[in-house]
Amino acid sequence: MRASGEQAQANSCDIGVVGLGVMGKNLALNLADHGYRVACFDLDAGRVEAIVKQDEKERGEQPERIIPVSALDAMLDSLTSPAVILLSIPAGDAVDAVCEQLITAGLVPDDVVIDTGNSLWTDSVAREQKYADKFQFFTTAVSGGEVGARFGPSLMPSGSEKAWKRVAPMLKAIAAKVDPQTGKSIETAEPGKPVTEGEPCAAYIGPNGAGHYVKMVHNGIEYADMQLICETYHVMRVALGMTPAEIARVFRKWTEGPLDSYLIEISAEVLEQTDAESQQPLVDVILDKAGQKGTGLWTAVSALQIGSPAQTIAQAVFARSLSSLKTERVAAANTLAGPTAPVIAEDQRETVIRQLEHALYCSKICAYAQGFQLMDAAAKEQGWTLHFAEIAKIWRAGCIIRAVFLQSITQAFEKQADLPNLLMAPFFVEQLASHQDDWRGAVALSAVHGIPCPAMMSALSYYDSYRTAVLPANLLQGQRDYFGAHTYQRTDKPAGQKYHTEWSDPTRPEHLI
Amino acid sequence: MRASGEQAQANSCDIGVVGLGVMGKNLALNLADHGYRVACFDLDAGRVEAIVKQDEKERGEQPERIIPVSALDAMLDSLTSPAVILLSIPAGDAVDAVCEQLITAGLVPDDVVIDTGNSLWTDSVAREQKYADKFQFFTTAVSGGEVGARFGPSLMPSGSEKAWKRVAPMLKAIAAKVDPQTGKSIETAEPGKPVTEGEPCAAYIGPNGAGHYVKMVHNGIEYADMQLICETYHVMRVALGMTPAEIARVFRKWTEGPLDSYLIEISAEVLEQTDAESQQPLVDVILDKAGQKGTGLWTAVSALQIGSPAQTIAQAVFARSLSSLKTERVAAANTLAGPTAPVIAEDQRETVIRQLEHALYCSKICAYAQGFQLMDAAAKEQGWTLHFAEIAKIWRAGCIIRAVFLQSITQAFEKQADLPNLLMAPFFVEQLASHQDDWRGAVALSAVHGIPCPAMMSALSYYDSYRTAVLPANLLQGQRDYFGAHTYQRTDKPAGQKYHTEWSDPTRPEHLI
Repeated sequence: MRASGEQAQANSCDIGVVGLGVMGKNLALNLADHGYRVACFDLDAGRVEAIVKQDEKERGEQPERIIPVSALDAMLDSLTSPAVILLSIPAGDAVDAVCEQLITAGLVPDDVVIDTGNSLWTDSVAREQKYADKFQFFTTAVSGGEVGARFGPSLMPSGSEKAWKRVAPMLKAIAAKVDPQTGKSIETAEPGKPVTEGEPCAAYIGPNGAGHYVKMVHNGIEYADMQLICETYHVMRVALGMTPAEIARVFRKWTEGPLDSYLIEISAEVLEQTDAESQQPLVDVILDKAGQKGTGLWTAVSALQIGSPAQTIAQAVFARSLSSLKTERVAAANTLAGPTAPVIAEDQRETVIRQLEHALYCSKICAYAQGFQLMDAAAKEQGWTLHFAEIAKIWRAGCIIRAVFLQSITQAFEKQADLPNLLMAPFFVEQLASHQDDWRGAVALSAVHGIPCPAMMSALSYYDSYRTAVLPANLLQGQRDYFGAHTYQRTDKPAGQKYHTEWSDPTRPEHLI
Repeated sequence: MRASGEQAQANSCDIGVVGLGVMGKNLALNLADHGYRVACFDLDAGRVEAIVKQDEKERGEQPERIIPVSALDAMLDSLTSPAVILLSIPAGDAVDAVCEQLITAGLVPDDVVIDTGNSLWTDSVAREQKYADKFQFFTTAVSGGEVGARFGPSLMPSGSEKAWKRVAPMLKAIAAKVDPQTGKSIETAEPGKPVTEGEPCAAYIGPNGAGHYVKMVHNGIEYADMQLICETYHVMRVALGMTPAEIARVFRKWTEGPLDSYLIEISAEVLEQTDAESQQPLVDVILDKAGQKGTGLWTAVSALQIGSPAQTIAQAVFARSLSSLKTERVAAANTLAGPTAPVIAEDQRETVIRQLEHALYCSKICAYAQGFQLMDAAAKEQGWTLHFAEIAKIWRAGCIIRAVFLQSITQAFEKQADLPNLLMAPFFVEQLASHQDDWRGAVALSAVHGIPCPAMMSALSYYDSYRTAVLPANLLQGQRDYFGAHTYQRTDKPAGQKYHTEWSDPTRPEHLI
């Protein structure tokens, strides 16, 4: 089959891209900017035409960088050997369908196929095994949205080390770059002017879907981060009566401190936007029903199954589900009673804003702590060796959760790779100690004023649970032993020894099981 | 095969019980108390011997009610036709193994096998299909622990209506009974003196695993209820410095009001218990690491997958996971800073206790609302017709979450079967309105005093989210459209129309997708 391709282009391309939607097109152009010749294919010929035109526009007098191909076997013919093909197609069955077609088209065992979709990590594990004797199935999760894909995404690659060796130069080239001193992104947004200096946000995560797992947790953290920002916005809006523009100014101010992040920046931009049609703030015209694509809920499901308390991430997922019940909420707003809290006085505004800033910061620390704790638990279960400093590093730029804050996390794990929990890093211990009173104040205020802050509250309860030496789980174990003879352990006996009390017996002798 | 059984007992028994662990033994004795002759089998001959001895002791001069059989084919021979066999064996592969053995032993299509284990509901769906032409695979989830199994459990049966007709008299006989006027359990704990009056806590739930789904949600609610009780205990213990015995007295007092429930009662009993060895309250000797068997996490996973906001149930599951990190918590307690909240004055104690009582009540309402909301969502997805008044009814007695409160829920659904949410029932609207300020006070107090109340906080945020007409999900949709072109809907345009703003374009024209 392979021989039947378009001979004219034989062996002239460095990499093939299958799927030219917004992500695939931008990844291809990003590769082109870094000097790679890219063979491009899409079932939709219009998309192929569009990227060729865009290449013509962007490269000016330079030679063509985007080579259209009309079929997968033609693509294989066009590539240097071993072939590298990057898939940018919907996660799920489509990935297997294209892999099978590529096998038919003539893939050989040394060839590498890179899945860049938001695949479920267990699917990636299964595919790496399934295709092991046909070709090298490799994955790289991509974060950063369309702009990231075009000018520098954060990449979380996984698969065999052999395949990594083959594709590492390309992936490192197109990845976002960070100034190692400041931890800040070195930005570009100009076609043909790629960033070539700095630390690339692409590091080998491990075999067997590890990269997709890490990306999944990245997205779970992203859900929590977004929800937390929305909650602080909501408190300012309702309890302080601030306008979107005023809140945007507060967010801009926060970017001067440890909250400096892409998500805060774009939140400010969204809040500053005026709707052309109604001349109202756009945010007030946007319907408050949140969508979701699945990675947040996968993270929460994995956390439940592994038994790792990623509760703030789960709350963020549930907050989206609840938001979708718009009709019910509007009806309930007229029926269910709210608080009789006093209005917050004008001269308290600065204090409340400071409380919210610190509450957001502390809650963020907890959400990230939960994400790293979950990755640690998964790594132990799956036998992966995850390097958390490396993971924090590649999240410093390119991806949606990029933030100055990730430099602090990088440093925390560089100082102590086996931190039991991010909360226990000396830097964060100190940050939490100095900001926790404000955090508590913000949570109390939202409770008393009836403003829902599910993620912020769950973050505080995570912090307080984690630092509580004796939790009421002792009473809970007593309950479980009472009704179900589930037994309990004793604090004064060796771990693992199980005791049961005969609760319905008046003399109730406790005994060792 | 069937003919090879012990002919002496042919057709002499009404039902067979396979598996004589604590649950199977007690269900068999319960059946015997209600006049059924029960053929009993267990791979462990000692267990068979034990139940025969117990029957001898309990029946006195009456004829034998428990008939030991030595093999499954002998059991089939001993049964009237069509045969009814109740399995009390571990959920999972064992159920299929025994079903296959029973087919080999001679089951015919009209025979009924009842799985009473804590099976995953999707396994029950699969089994009902798998065995459809061999025998009637029926399930009944059983709640009430060992005492419930012996003297009256709550049963949630599902399978074909034909099988239900065959087994309904037996299941209704052994189920817990409720006084229909008061909604309270009619109790017995005396062998041979079964309760025969009142409404049985056994109602046909539906086909295809519906009963196991409902039981799973029951357990999820149970997790939340237990966690909420533990949190109120913890606040009294830490913020008010009360002893376990003092807290037990408060719990006993609460049983005079709407919190009257089995779980509050047994919590008081656990707290009253003194450890014989150390002479300390037993609760202080029990290790605070909570175990779990899976049904709570299944509920939370199902809620995430369906997109139903059962956040308080999920928090209760995560609270158990977090409790298991005992070593980490003890280390963190010495490192992570706590609040600098003032001590609560002695004369505030009664106020705080009242706040906690109302906080527990309101939080419970939310946890139950989430459970019913989840069942409603699952029923829509699976095509089940669930009768929520019936489900609330069968939970009024026998099961772990039995409570006076379930009479109020029964009445709410009897008045309006299609309630959009339990919170919207007029009775609960009023209860929440009059107690919410105390609830808010308790949450604020726990935040300020650093006592983790994850479930109580998530319940409050559920209530406040549900009654909020405009949530900050509008900002969240703006963020999603900004970085991922995920689009948004507008409040002033028809539902379903998707808009996108070109955020990176300085003129940013919004357009319909």
